[in-house]
Amino acid sequence: MKYASFEAAGLSSWGLVEGEDIVDVGEILRDHVADLKDLIAQEAYGQALRARASAARRPLSTVTLRPVVSKPAKIFCVGHNYETHRQETGRAMVGHPSIFLRFADTLTAHGAPILRPKESASLDYEGELAVIIGQGGRRISEADALRHVAGFTCANDASVRDWQWHTQQFTPGKNFPGTAPLGPWMITPDEIADLQAVTVTTSLNGEVMQHASVADMIFPIPVIIAYLSTFTSLSPGDVILTGTPGGVGAKRKPPVWMKPGDIVEVGIAGVGRLVNFVCDEA
Amino acid sequence: MKYASFEAAGLSSWGLVEGEDIVDVGEILRDHVADLKDLIAQEAYGQALRARASAARRPLSTVTLRPVVSKPAKIFCVGHNYETHRQETGRAMVGHPSIFLRFADTLTAHGAPILRPKESASLDYEGELAVIIGQGGRRISEADALRHVAGFTCANDASVRDWQWHTQQFTPGKNFPGTAPLGPWMITPDEIADLQAVTVTTSLNGEVMQHASVADMIFPIPVIIAYLSTFTSLSPGDVILTGTPGGVGAKRKPPVWMKPGDIVEVGIAGVGRLVNFVCDEA
Repeated sequence: MKYASFEAAGLSSWGLVEGEDIVDVGEILRDHVADLKDLIAQEAYGQALRARASAARRPLSTVTLRPVVSKPAKIFCVGHNYETHRQETGRAMVGHPSIFLRFADTLTAHGAPILRPKESASLDYEGELAVIIGQGGRRISEADALRHVAGFTCANDASVRDWQWHTQQFTPGKNFPGTAPLGPWMITPDEIADLQAVTVTTSLNGEVMQHASVADMIFPIPVIIAYLSTFTSLSPGDVILTGTPGGVGAKRKPPVWMKPGDIVEVGIAGVGRLVNFVCDEA
Repeated sequence: MKYASFEAAGLSSWGLVEGEDIVDVGEILRDHVADLKDLIAQEAYGQALRARASAARRPLSTVTLRPVVSKPAKIFCVGHNYETHRQETGRAMVGHPSIFLRFADTLTAHGAPILRPKESASLDYEGELAVIIGQGGRRISEADALRHVAGFTCANDASVRDWQWHTQQFTPGKNFPGTAPLGPWMITPDEIADLQAVTVTTSLNGEVMQHASVADMIFPIPVIIAYLSTFTSLSPGDVILTGTPGGVGAKRKPPVWMKPGDIVEVGIAGVGRLVNFVCDEA
């Protein structure tokens, strides 16, 4: 199944994506399920499927998609998790995933602008597979980890590089508002035959800039989930950006920075295509 | 004024600390002001003072204090913001504050345990002055910054050092639950005659381990607020831990780690005394 969050006629809702339509299950279940995060927390998937028959079908083209989960309690990002990216950034090999955090107000939707702040011209793309946590927990074992995944989506961990590199801590360059597209929808794990074979491809104005397979990750998804849940509790709807492959704009010669009007796409085979344009922050 | 969050008879409330009592203003204003964060957001200080006359006085010794703000939207930490600590850690001089983040579920209260996780024996103290944001905003100027401060409190940015040093990103070692005491109360800025002269003193089992003055900060509070609000919006109740002075346990020879039964105190002259004991996580 594919679940998406959206707005239509000024109301927030969520539903099932089927072909070119979205089935507005959220409208039917409004009194029981607040949003997609709540659906995940309640594991109310059966209820959603039963409500499907009586729900309105809306053409996707007529709704405004929202970030898949609009207010995750926690958003984790994994740095340098593909060997090609580790090498291009000159980072040392490390024995653990490199973890930094994003605030929920950095999220934006499929089709929405990525905002270039007036403080920087060094805006870069980072196409990534995102994991959405289902059942939460602490000290989840690697063996159990994938059972805690509600689904997958596409993310762009867009980075304001000069601010990222002000010090060793990445926080500032990763937390400008409107720099983290997440979508277009969450696909449930049962729809992915072979997670390791999933590929992540980032294109800028139609040109492929990054391409790798999930199998190329230095720290596989179960290792990441086990590691994170050792030091903090995971909750339904939490989001993990699992790292970006080599080919970022900052490490090209000369560097490639995103500028207003650029179109950036993160395509994840079997998951979805996340398309955004770049716009100067008002 | 001193404001604190507490629980009494199973109910959460907040109030004014006066001598050895807390005036339970939260009980009176329950329908209008949800908690201390809401008081700050509404700037309902006049309402709180008017409610004071009819509010119950409870001895502080009969209530359980909570973290001053129990669920800040954002908690920022500034790394290496005192020259003595920068030197002992061997960090390069940088032109901007080093910023990492904590989740709200790391907070704990005055008098509550600091939890040592079973994964580490390298638990360290970091006494710090904490700023609580009043009126929020984006791109706040240094000149205006102190007008956006609701008050100050004491913090202990207790750190699981081996996890902090797994990679260059500090996130894991700073986000174990129950590692960030915040309290005992928020003191309003009008009570502090000279912010620069305020001193931070950390004691472990009665021995002074850290001592510095706010004037020793590399990046003063207005610079920090201006910097943070450039890349993200600040909201009422957000918390900034402004950095720790030299003298941390990790850099002593031999290193000093906190262990169960230890008593750690962060005393900030004119602000308060934050006392905690260390306990193994259950």
